[in-house]
Amino acid sequence: MVSVGIIGGSGYTGKKLVQFCSAHSFVNEFKIYAHKSAGQFITDLFPDLNGQIINSKIESIDDLSSEHDIYFIALPHGEALKYVPRLISSGKKVIDLGGDYRLNSQIEYEKWYGINHTSPSLLKNKTYGLADYYGTEYSNINLVANPGCYPTATLLSLLPLVSGFKENILSISVSAYSGTSGAGKTPKLELMMSEMDGDASAYNVNKHRHQPEIIQNLKQFGFDSAFSFTTHLLPTAVGIYATSSVHLKEKINEEEVKNYYKNFYIESPFVRLRETPPHLNWVINSNFCDISVSVKDKVMIVTAAIDNLVKGASGQAIQNMNKLLGFEESLGLGIKGVKDASIY
Amino acid sequence: MVSVGIIGGSGYTGKKLVQFCSAHSFVNEFKIYAHKSAGQFITDLFPDLNGQIINSKIESIDDLSSEHDIYFIALPHGEALKYVPRLISSGKKVIDLGGDYRLNSQIEYEKWYGINHTSPSLLKNKTYGLADYYGTEYSNINLVANPGCYPTATLLSLLPLVSGFKENILSISVSAYSGTSGAGKTPKLELMMSEMDGDASAYNVNKHRHQPEIIQNLKQFGFDSAFSFTTHLLPTAVGIYATSSVHLKEKINEEEVKNYYKNFYIESPFVRLRETPPHLNWVINSNFCDISVSVKDKVMIVTAAIDNLVKGASGQAIQNMNKLLGFEESLGLGIKGVKDASIY
Amino acid sequence: MVSVGIIGGSGYTGKKLVQFCSAHSFVNEFKIYAHKSAGQFITDLFPDLNGQIINSKIESIDDLSSEHDIYFIALPHGEALKYVPRLISSGKKVIDLGGDYRLNSQIEYEKWYGINHTSPSLLKNKTYGLADYYGTEYSNINLVANPGCYPTATLLSLLPLVSGFKENILSISVSAYSGTSGAGKTPKLELMMSEMDGDASAYNVNKHRHQPEIIQNLKQFGFDSAFSFTTHLLPTAVGIYATSSVHLKEKINEEEVKNYYKNFYIESPFVRLRETPPHLNWVINSNFCDISVSVKDKVMIVTAAIDNLVKGASGQAIQNMNKLLGFEESLGLGIKGVKDASIY
Amino acid sequence: MVSVGIIGGSGYTGKKLVQFCSAHSFVNEFKIYAHKSAGQFITDLFPDLNGQIINSKIESIDDLSSEHDIYFIALPHGEALKYVPRLISSGKKVIDLGGDYRLNSQIEYEKWYGINHTSPSLLKNKTYGLADYYGTEYSNINLVANPGCYPTATLLSLLPLVSGFKENILSISVSAYSGTSGAGKTPKLELMMSEMDGDASAYNVNKHRHQPEIIQNLKQFGFDSAFSFTTHLLPTAVGIYATSSVHLKEKINEEEVKNYYKNFYIESPFVRLRETPPHLNWVINSNFCDISVSVKDKVMIVTAAIDNLVKGASGQAIQNMNKLLGFEESLGLGIKGVKDASIY
Repeated sequence: MVSVGIIGGSGYTGKKLVQFCSAHSFVNEFKIYAHKSAGQFITDLFPDLNGQIINSKIESIDDLSSEHDIYFIALPHGEALKYVPRLISSGKKVIDLGGDYRLNSQIEYEKWYGINHTSPSLLKNKTYGLADYYGTEYSNINLVANPGCYPTATLLSLLPLVSGFKENILSISVSAYSGTSGAGKTPKLELMMSEMDGDASAYNVNKHRHQPEIIQNLKQFGFDSAFSFTTHLLPTAVGIYATSSVHLKEKINEEEVKNYYKNFYIESPFVRLRETPPHLNWVINSNFCDISVSVKDKVMIVTAAIDNLVKGASGQAIQNMNKLLGFEESLGLGIKGVKDASIY
Repeated sequence: MVSVGIIGGSGYTGKKLVQFCSAHSFVNEFKIYAHKSAGQFITDLFPDLNGQIINSKIESIDDLSSEHDIYFIALPHGEALKYVPRLISSGKKVIDLGGDYRLNSQIEYEKWYGINHTSPSLLKNKTYGLADYYGTEYSNINLVANPGCYPTATLLSLLPLVSGFKENILSISVSAYSGTSGAGKTPKLELMMSEMDGDASAYNVNKHRHQPEIIQNLKQFGFDSAFSFTTHLLPTAVGIYATSSVHLKEKINEEEVKNYYKNFYIESPFVRLRETPPHLNWVINSNFCDISVSVKDKVMIVTAAIDNLVKGASGQAIQNMNKLLGFEESLGLGIKGVKDASIY
Repeated sequence: MVSVGIIGGSGYTGKKLVQFCSAHSFVNEFKIYAHKSAGQFITDLFPDLNGQIINSKIESIDDLSSEHDIYFIALPHGEALKYVPRLISSGKKVIDLGGDYRLNSQIEYEKWYGINHTSPSLLKNKTYGLADYYGTEYSNINLVANPGCYPTATLLSLLPLVSGFKENILSISVSAYSGTSGAGKTPKLELMMSEMDGDASAYNVNKHRHQPEIIQNLKQFGFDSAFSFTTHLLPTAVGIYATSSVHLKEKINEEEVKNYYKNFYIESPFVRLRETPPHLNWVINSNFCDISVSVKDKVMIVTAAIDNLVKGASGQAIQNMNKLLGFEESLGLGIKGVKDASIY
Repeated sequence: MVSVGIIGGSGYTGKKLVQFCSAHSFVNEFKIYAHKSAGQFITDLFPDLNGQIINSKIESIDDLSSEHDIYFIALPHGEALKYVPRLISSGKKVIDLGGDYRLNSQIEYEKWYGINHTSPSLLKNKTYGLADYYGTEYSNINLVANPGCYPTATLLSLLPLVSGFKENILSISVSAYSGTSGAGKTPKLELMMSEMDGDASAYNVNKHRHQPEIIQNLKQFGFDSAFSFTTHLLPTAVGIYATSSVHLKEKINEEEVKNYYKNFYIESPFVRLRETPPHLNWVINSNFCDISVSVKDKVMIVTAAIDNLVKGASGQAIQNMNKLLGFEESLGLGIKGVKDASIY
């Protein structure tokens, strides 16, 4: 049994962490720490959780206790820098859901995030926690950088391809759409129902911070072909739909590709390979990533769907905790045979 | 441990039953029976359930097995009449989610539903399974008529009022809005996204079949004041929001009413009384009914929110099964302290 | 030809005014005045208007010109008090789209709006501009209080009833739902897509400022039966759907009521009486109010749909301008036979 | 003044044609012809048009009159083949909104549409009516093939690029999202609100009929680089958002590209070049195509937004009529300076 500290529990991902921890068989205690909402009950922030979780008061981050075994950090980037080094040096396990430790290079971090990185040595001493990739390292790891929502969908879509067929890739273009919850809870005009109803738009074109995160991980497989990544908003609250259009140098056999994907994810309980393009609604409120591959001549289209707050954030973070602490990977995440947190 | 038969599992409520049964600690086996979809796998119909349930083929209703202990019927009205009498006479427990056994009067049934009732004696030998009302009878009961979605929200809103204050009621006007899933899965132009996006409209004005069901149950408390009930469609898939506007003969004390409601539901784990009007999103994917009461002078407004497919159908059906079979009421329905099916 | 000043043109109703004025045959010039957005081009605020309107810079309210013949005021309540008296005393025509001049009683205003009224004499010297009511007075009028969005839908629904049948009314309960644009453009958490997607909720129960406005106007017809009014948010951007549930003392003939409604609106080009409940989508982007009446025994249900920004604000304001200045009522508002601004 | 026949007026594009013709200064008469809805009034099909159009009965297609000067055909593909040759040979002008005459090659048509083409000579004797492209030929033209909705957005996005920079293009990947109205009015489960609410999904991957239409037109500019095109559904009723990700062989100057686009569309009143990615809501209910270009290193992203029913169908068809008959291009389409049909 473990005790969990959730630092920054007032946002959408914090809420999901509370729900998952509340339902997890091996979490016997959790506390939420926040700035502005300290002193409130969790259910003051999230009235729907009333009666569904063991309620408690939100603690002040200034009173962060060292009593917990593992800490989830769900703070804006830049903020995690203030807490992670201290927690790591006191021997704690830390899973950071923000962007502060995802990039390996201090230079890249400072270029894309626009702030100084004050604990660059940890950039090397962490694991990039893409939980469904068999090669992710968890032994002797104290710090997990939980992947961004777009990188999760994109990398799960593309890693098998670049792993198995990288020489044959002419170019990859990722076009991804997200629900508005990915933009956080801070009120902004452009995120209001009155503006977003029926709307769609690209944003941060050629400058989204998730782009270097994706490229860094593709490069580790030797990928160096042309790559682009474009993000959009969907007129809905939750979910990411990522379409990767791949131009190949030579024709390729669709079955061969599909088999490669199948073997790549043979041990991943949360990647579901589909015969037809997935629907976003198939994965909402679940930790699944549904992926479909279609090849015709020298064009390959990979479509993937995730819940940005679960697989793209808090669900994957729980999965990372499970792997880090040696629990069964899907514990508390609701899949077949795991009765203790079944989804409905 | 029980074996469950789900008759008519291809619709939205059938799907929820599959999910609940799959996660229920005391259900060790369940089978789905249907007409058109017989022979398909459950996950052919509901691809999102892949990996979340123990998959199986859908059986033909014609091959309905008598091996189950309890049967849920999720068929259009008129269809249950064909199966219920036989199941009951062979000693089975039956929970009918349709309208065939909700009314007590054969005459009323035939007037509102337009078909002959072929097992009218069962209209008397059933319980109307409003699971959160303390007075609902479960002992020596074999047939439960699971309440309609609108009646569930409306009766939970109004029973305490008519129970405690009926002499003071001048009139009640219920205005209720439902998501489109309440209208079923049969494709219709007026239910398409292209028509419903941003739309709202009243329908079946002064002729909705749920009206006699509500009135029948209000009358059992001696209510006989003016009553009206109007239904509308919301531009969303799931949920019911019911607003009851009550005109009183004499002023009433708000605190007195609230206390009466509180005591009325003191033992109901799924009724949450709220200080402010509930939000529909507070109850989606849950078995809760959130209710708020506001009194000013001689006007009392009761607002209630439910998930029409859970509390308004399959969740309440599971709750009825639990009560019928003597299980803990909230088993498999995801609330605090009940780790085996926590919602997220 | 007239010159128009639009004071407060940066909100949703201001935008509609710009569009209407831009398309109006008899408006040869219009200027927008605002606080924060002064100095910007109209199309900086509303990029969709690019190429659709004669663009111009937004002026500062501090530099409000007296050159215009008529002024629309689309400011938050309390703000109009600063401009209206001066404009009226300098002989201008003013149409205020806010709440500052809608109530006739200073006491009621100060009670419901919580601020002092600094020009109470104008409360008597104005017309309440319910443009589709034949009795609204426009001769010798300089100040028009443009009705609120909810009161427009509610009063158009109920005025014929109270006019013709008031002695027979036991109680009226109005349940109205609005799109989020009615709550304005100021970013608020509860109005964000992430919160509102699929949501619905009642708000301001028993304390909405539009309630005294409605009652004031019903009372002018001698109505004094029980009345309630409850407002809700719809998960969409635009539109109001109002359902009035009326309990009658004695049975009434539906055809008689319908005929009364028909005669009441015989000269109103924008009230469309419908045989079935209207759909919100029938009136979006139009100045119509669609109304349907259903009577059964002693229950009468009136349903009405409007676009809250057009008929419930700026469209009605233009209609009021037309009537005030002696133009054809529907000029610039897009109906049959009026080719100069047809809707599509 | 012209008389217009609209063949197939009961769908979403037919409705828009009715609205545009009703508001068009130079259309003095129009009639609708349909199969199933013959005999009904237009407003029986489209109740929102009541009072907005000159109403009339829908005629049977079997009684198609030869009295009209120009015919719009809004029928499913395959159906237009039955009417177009006869109309053309009797000297009429025809604008076909379906796919029967868009491709130049009979072989390609029969391969992609799966039916025989019975008037292949007309495939050569037509103009592909991309109305905003300066090179589209209208002189001595009787048959206009109105472009598909996706091709309109895609070609307007890419024609300047392939015209000016084709040698530098390594690959183009188009990812386009459409509202559900693009899928027509026939009720289908997958298009219902209950399924589509909050959903997104790719469809027809590597096999959408609009792909050869796009490629045919890109090839006319000499384009022969790698190309892919993927279509998706948005959870909303109206609009297309198309993102073209272009990989270049050599770096290119963003300003140079933007200038080329600007000059390319210098005479197009309906193409609005934007500094930031357009929002779908900027173009809904308008005939505009909003386009934005972003270049970084060897990646160029072009985003475009249109209303699929207006610019992607009926608006462009009216624009084509205007050009074909020598009217001012924007007549009846609501832009600045054209008071006779201004949008609001």
